Order: sequence, then structure tokens, then C-alpha cells
Amino acid sequence: MIAEFQTYCRTMTHLTPEEIDQVCTLATPRTLQKNEDLLKQGQICRHKTFIIKGLLRSYGTAADGTEYILHFSPERSWTLDPESYHLLTATRFNITAIERTDVLQWNKEAFDRLLREIPALDRYSQLMVSKSNYIGRHRLFTTLSSTPEEKYDDFVRNNPGLLPRLPLHMIAAYLGMSLKTLTRIRHAQLHR
Amino acid sequence: MIAEFQTYCRTMTHLTPEEIDQVCTLATPRTLQKNEDLLKQGQICRHKTFIIKGLLRSYGTAADGTEYILHFSPERSWTLDPESYHLLTATRFNITAIERTDVLQWNKEAFDRLLREIPALDRYSQLMVSKSNYIGRHRLFTTLSSTPEEKYDDFVRNNPGLLPRLPLHMIAAYLGMSLKTLTRIRHAQLHR
Repeated sequence: MIAEFQTYCRTMTHLTPEEIDQVCTLATPRTLQKNEDLLKQGQICRHKTFIIKGLLRSYGTAADGTEYILHFSPERSWTLDPESYHLLTATRFNITAIERTDVLQWNKEAFDRLLREIPALDRYSQLMVSKSNYIGRHRLFTTLSSTPEEKYDDFVRNNPGLLPRLPLHMIAAYLGMSLKTLTRIRHAQLHR
Repeated sequence: MIAEFQTYCRTMTHLTPEEIDQVCTLATPRTLQKNEDLLKQGQICRHKTFIIKGLLRSYGTAADGTEYILHFSPERSWTLDPESYHLLTATRFNITAIERTDVLQWNKEAFDRLLREIPALDRYSQLMVSKSNYIGRHRLFTTLSSTPEEKYDDFVRNNPGLLPRLPLHMIAAYLGMSLKTLTRIRHAQLHR
């Protein structure tokens, strides 16, 4: 698993080979089975997690039990509940494996130490937070302003690789529409 | 204007009086009339803006011309388009004054210099970005998962001070519903 993460760091960050080794030394590998939880509502998020292989979803559950998905985390991305991680509060969200998933994890103490000791990691980490902020704004705007058809088209355009890996009910839970509405949209497109 | 900002810094940050003076020296005061734009779609966001007095909204316009509001920025808060500001790209959003509004502004060059020279400002700034991230996640989840009635109740609960300052059509544009739906909800509540 470490080799994939080293490749990611070499291509995506400005860390030196020695700094990459230092980050790897504090990582713990973990494998999640399909449907296994990385984080459950009510727990405190105590790790930063990098996905080597597989796919996770972050989601919350409404009062009536319906699931709504905030985002998907495929290979070569990071996942955590930032609020719970930074403030040590119980999360209202869940993170669960959609497929068998290999990850690397760092606990907060270890990662904070790395951030203090490696300025390039701190800068990269800030960049990731900013990027997540931009993506969140666009997703909020699309969720507020688009028709169900536009939301689905937007999802297909921006996530072509994810589409065949997701059951339809999860795509519906991400787009905030019923499975029935999503099925109707897909059916209409096939006959267009 | 500077006095209000100094009070904010003393109560909300760990900056020393000298550091607060240093930040103030590089600020430019500006007054926006009601309906005046701070930022328009297509422009590059070149300033961080702190609101001393008044109220702004950040919004985008859908293909059919309908306005959707991402957030409101009342006194003692910051506003900018983070993506446009950091990446120097044209924004797809607008920031406009709802009331006559007094602000302080820093251009990117000046603020970047302050961030390099004042570590406490850098930490505070990172905290603000994180907080905006948490708020964005909760807002996305509410937008995806709640009924129109729940969305309105949530807004009233979390923004009691804003309610009397906002025209109804802006509350509807924030909640992602038609003015007709919002009026129906408020009418039903009055008769509850």
C-alpha cells in the first residue's frame, strides 16, 4: 500500500523523498470489507484516511431514516469528518466502504506532528481544505439551483469513472432525489 | 470603522495590539450602497472583505435567471469568493449589499504579507476556512435532506437576527424554494 501512497506524494505534493518516508512511517494500513464502517454517527473522527484502492461514501441519515450522501471518496483521495476531527465532537455523519477498500490512516497526534515538522505538508494540507471548500460551494449551488435532470447530467459529466461502481440508490442519495425520479430520468435519456 | 475591527480582533483572535495595528494599517474602508455589487460574476475576487456594519449576500444565477443564495454575511463576518481569490479565476458568483454596508478590505498581496508576518493571523485564517467548511457540510446536508418546512424552521432557529432584515424572496432564494412555497409555510405556521 505504501508504494501507491509514495507515488501519489511524488506526483501531487512538493515533499522531498525523505519527507515522504517520514509521513509513511507514521501511517497504519487498514482494509475495510464492503459495507464496513470507517466512522459511525456519534463517534469522534480520530484519523485522517487516504484511500489506496476502493471507494467510500460519507453520508448522513434524515429523521425518517433516509440516507443522503455528502460525497464519494475513491482511490487517491482523503476522507475524514473535518469538524469531528478538529473539534473532537461526535459526528452526525457516517463513512462506509462501498467496495472492499485499502486505506492508510494517521491519528491526529501523529498527523499534527507531521504538519509541524514538514511545512510542505502543511501547505498541501491547506490546499486540500481550500479545494474541498470550493467543491462544496459548487455542489451546494448545483443542489439548490438545478433540476433533477441537470443534477444527474452534472454527476455523469464529473464522475464518469464512478458511475459503473455505484448502485442506483446511492446516486439518488447523492443527488437528493428518490430512486423513482432517478430511474425515470435515466429511462428518458435512453429513449432520447 | 477601524475601532470596530480592533474590538473584533481583540475578542476573537490571539493577535497582539501591535499585530492588530499592523493589520489595520493595510485595510481600506469602503461603503456600499444598498444593491451595490462587491463582486460580479465573471470578475476576479481581489480582496478579503470584513463587514463592519450592514449585510451582504453571495449568490449565483441559474440558467433561467433565478437567483440562489449561498450565504449571508452580516457585521463581524468575512466574505470573499475563495476559489476566485486563491486561483485568480473568474467567479461564477456575485456578492451584493442588501443594506448600506461598511466594510474593510485587504488586497491579496497585502493580506498574504500579513499572513507570512503574523503566525497568529495565519492560524486564525485557517480556523475560519475550516469553520466555513463545517458550515458548508451542514448546509449541504440540510439542503439535501430536509423538507421545505424543516429548512425554514432551521433557518429561523439559526438566524433569528437576520429574519427581519431580509425580504422574503431572499429567504426563499437561500432555502432553494419558490416564494409561493415559503409564503405557504409561513402562513401555515401563523395558524398553527
